[in-house]
Amino acid sequence: MTRKLHLNAFLMGVGHHEAAWRHPRTEPARLTDVRHYQELARIAERGKLDSVFLADGVALHGDFQSGRVRHALRHNALGGLEPLTLLSALAAVTDHIGLIATVSTTYNEPFHVARKFASLDHISGGRAGWNIVTSAGEAEARNFGVVRPSHADRYARATEFLDVVRKLWDSWEDDAILRDRTGGLYADTGKIHAIEHAGEYFAVSGPLNTSRSPQGHPLLVQAGSSEDGKEFAARYAEAVFTAQQTLEEGQEFYADLKRRLAAYGRRHEDVLVLPGISPIIGSTEREALRLEQELEDLIIPAYGLAQLSQMTGIELTEDALDRPLPEVSVETEGAQSRRKLVIDLARREGLTVRQLLGRLAGGRGHRVLAGTPEQIADQLQEWFFAGAADGFNIMPPILPGGLSDFVDHVVPELQVRGLFRYDYEGRTLRENYGLPRPASRYAGARREEVAVAR
Amino acid sequence: MTRKLHLNAFLMGVGHHEAAWRHPRTEPARLTDVRHYQELARIAERGKLDSVFLADGVALHGDFQSGRVRHALRHNALGGLEPLTLLSALAAVTDHIGLIATVSTTYNEPFHVARKFASLDHISGGRAGWNIVTSAGEAEARNFGVVRPSHADRYARATEFLDVVRKLWDSWEDDAILRDRTGGLYADTGKIHAIEHAGEYFAVSGPLNTSRSPQGHPLLVQAGSSEDGKEFAARYAEAVFTAQQTLEEGQEFYADLKRRLAAYGRRHEDVLVLPGISPIIGSTEREALRLEQELEDLIIPAYGLAQLSQMTGIELTEDALDRPLPEVSVETEGAQSRRKLVIDLARREGLTVRQLLGRLAGGRGHRVLAGTPEQIADQLQEWFFAGAADGFNIMPPILPGGLSDFVDHVVPELQVRGLFRYDYEGRTLRENYGLPRPASRYAGARREEVAVAR
Repeated sequence: MTRKLHLNAFLMGVGHHEAAWRHPRTEPARLTDVRHYQELARIAERGKLDSVFLADGVALHGDFQSGRVRHALRHNALGGLEPLTLLSALAAVTDHIGLIATVSTTYNEPFHVARKFASLDHISGGRAGWNIVTSAGEAEARNFGVVRPSHADRYARATEFLDVVRKLWDSWEDDAILRDRTGGLYADTGKIHAIEHAGEYFAVSGPLNTSRSPQGHPLLVQAGSSEDGKEFAARYAEAVFTAQQTLEEGQEFYADLKRRLAAYGRRHEDVLVLPGISPIIGSTEREALRLEQELEDLIIPAYGLAQLSQMTGIELTEDALDRPLPEVSVETEGAQSRRKLVIDLARREGLTVRQLLGRLAGGRGHRVLAGTPEQIADQLQEWFFAGAADGFNIMPPILPGGLSDFVDHVVPELQVRGLFRYDYEGRTLRENYGLPRPASRYAGARREEVAVAR
Repeated sequence: MTRKLHLNAFLMGVGHHEAAWRHPRTEPARLTDVRHYQELARIAERGKLDSVFLADGVALHGDFQSGRVRHALRHNALGGLEPLTLLSALAAVTDHIGLIATVSTTYNEPFHVARKFASLDHISGGRAGWNIVTSAGEAEARNFGVVRPSHADRYARATEFLDVVRKLWDSWEDDAILRDRTGGLYADTGKIHAIEHAGEYFAVSGPLNTSRSPQGHPLLVQAGSSEDGKEFAARYAEAVFTAQQTLEEGQEFYADLKRRLAAYGRRHEDVLVLPGISPIIGSTEREALRLEQELEDLIIPAYGLAQLSQMTGIELTEDALDRPLPEVSVETEGAQSRRKLVIDLARREGLTVRQLLGRLAGGRGHRVLAGTPEQIADQLQEWFFAGAADGFNIMPPILPGGLSDFVDHVVPELQVRGLFRYDYEGRTLRENYGLPRPASRYAGARREEVAVAR
């Protein structure tokens, strides 16, 4: 089988561009309207995309308590829906598309997370995926009454969290349920296992109280690009979302991540690397550039400055707009790789702060591509064949229009080139991503006390 | 307006009777099939019922680690779906029916719970309700690495939990969102409030990162019948699910609960009391009794004994089946009121253990009514007019058949008698339950630091 691209649609409100809500092609009132997201999922499914994805954080914004940040936030579309709740409602109106939600390992309990994803996997017939994050923000810690844990501590917790969740997903063997009505035997409880996990962060007895789901394990996705993040991805992730600005950086990240797999007994093809791109599509290049300009004209610098200040740790005011980004010394906690990416971008291209805001407004550090469907397909093809990507995380600047433009114009171009499917190959998200279904670690094992009880 | 009954459909797998999964009118494979629950929600909506409700616990079963209990559990339909995830999928295929999920205050964080219910409320257009439980079971504690908190401690935490959740639901004023595209003002962030809660159990800054939902506060439901439980209900609950076997007990509970309201500045009509009933419906009384007998014949005593042992704290074996329930001295932790109800029932009617198992198999302590639609309507009417109920929590023995029987035969009888609606009066669950929409406690308040920042 020829190697094919995998495509995920990253859904975000009425678009990834920070001024999307002001553009005439969006309807900002749809931010909390489930029908909007259902329409997006159906468009993605019409385009045969592998999956849709919802990002998340557990605080309104980085630093809402600060008067200046709060003031700037007036300009941003805030207050959307919780991803897992939303994905079930999308499962109900789609049949094939994968459904990936972000959930933090820092402010949750593994039992709840294992159970909700197992439920979503049942509800969707095997289409659930979990984007694992560790919640770098200080505002998030303040919503859970704790001091923000260190980067190392968050990843140590995440590692044990994954260990527990995967045990819980395995706690029901595939053939535990008998449903023998005549004999009165619903389940073979010898095939339902307590996990008795006792570790540094968690003590969880199990078993899960939701039976084994269609995929066995919902798909594991990860997006951190720090050392810890890449190591974590190499160990657990089956798809990786990443922000890479240049082909060289993309190749380097790709090779680095794949190289780390062997240490965990995993193969090159066990993880898909999907860089983000925000495609600004026009039927001519000029039309695409006009749309890009329209969006840029709607940017409100105060908002971008507040975002950039938070991302870089540098306090930036409007006076700074037409000067280069100041030298940086202070290290911020978390999101280091995104911070480095942004600073490198400004340096490499000699951008003023205003120009940098324009570049970030489209994709918050992800690559923005403006052009015709052919030009965009060229770029995706180049990265795909140059060892920088197994597919892409599509981040349309405006929604739903930017997604339907991609599905109606870029997808057919990729299909004609033999780079993308004409129809779904599989029934589950794992099958469409070409990934195996994990067996239960307990399969075959029988607990002695049960044998005795019988 | 004449006073009308309110009806909730309590959905549980393929039926409330413990042997439902063995009955020829059910399909046990539907336990984790979302289409089953979607069909149930549509049937309830066809009957103009106020709401559907999903119970929950965060452990597979009371004492799965014990070999004997695990052995008995072979006979029970286990391992269903997580309620909140499921309700979103039901919201997607219905328009009017209220959607109530059980979530524990003991093993959750208020920020997550507030957000998920606000999201469900948005997704359903104002149909979300939360059944608040405090998780009495020891097995639940073992899934979260903690020693089971005492009854008093669980209720103290629940009280503060509610306080935080309601503040978070209020943190966005109703008119916080402006969506002024021309001026570039999405929100009036002066109307989005940090809550800065700092209490004994929780420290939560807020605001919520989901905007104010259609109902303001999703409906609050409660089902505990202990002293603490009733006090908690009087303070917060807007609907109360309760198990009452006799009219006298029902009247006493109803009067007791309503009497407690004044202390919290609440009116008689601010809380609906909904006793549970499991209606076994036949077109003749004989047909109803035959169905009841069919179900009873499918009971497996070993399973019922394990359940009853857990409920009463008495270790019961098969030798005990044809003798009266032994005298009880040991107190169990939690679920005291259900324990008392069961012991009183056995004493009052002089039941053997086997007979008691038969009585409990239908509704786990809730009232089982077998009869014609008219006979069942008579019973509901009697309790409704005798001051024992504002409506009922309907627990069909088999699903979907028992629910469609109720909707197609009992509901029309109640409608003809003027006791139940012919169509939905309102748009939201609150409107159909006849309950007011809470205002945000922050409405009108302006934070000084914001005024300064401007």
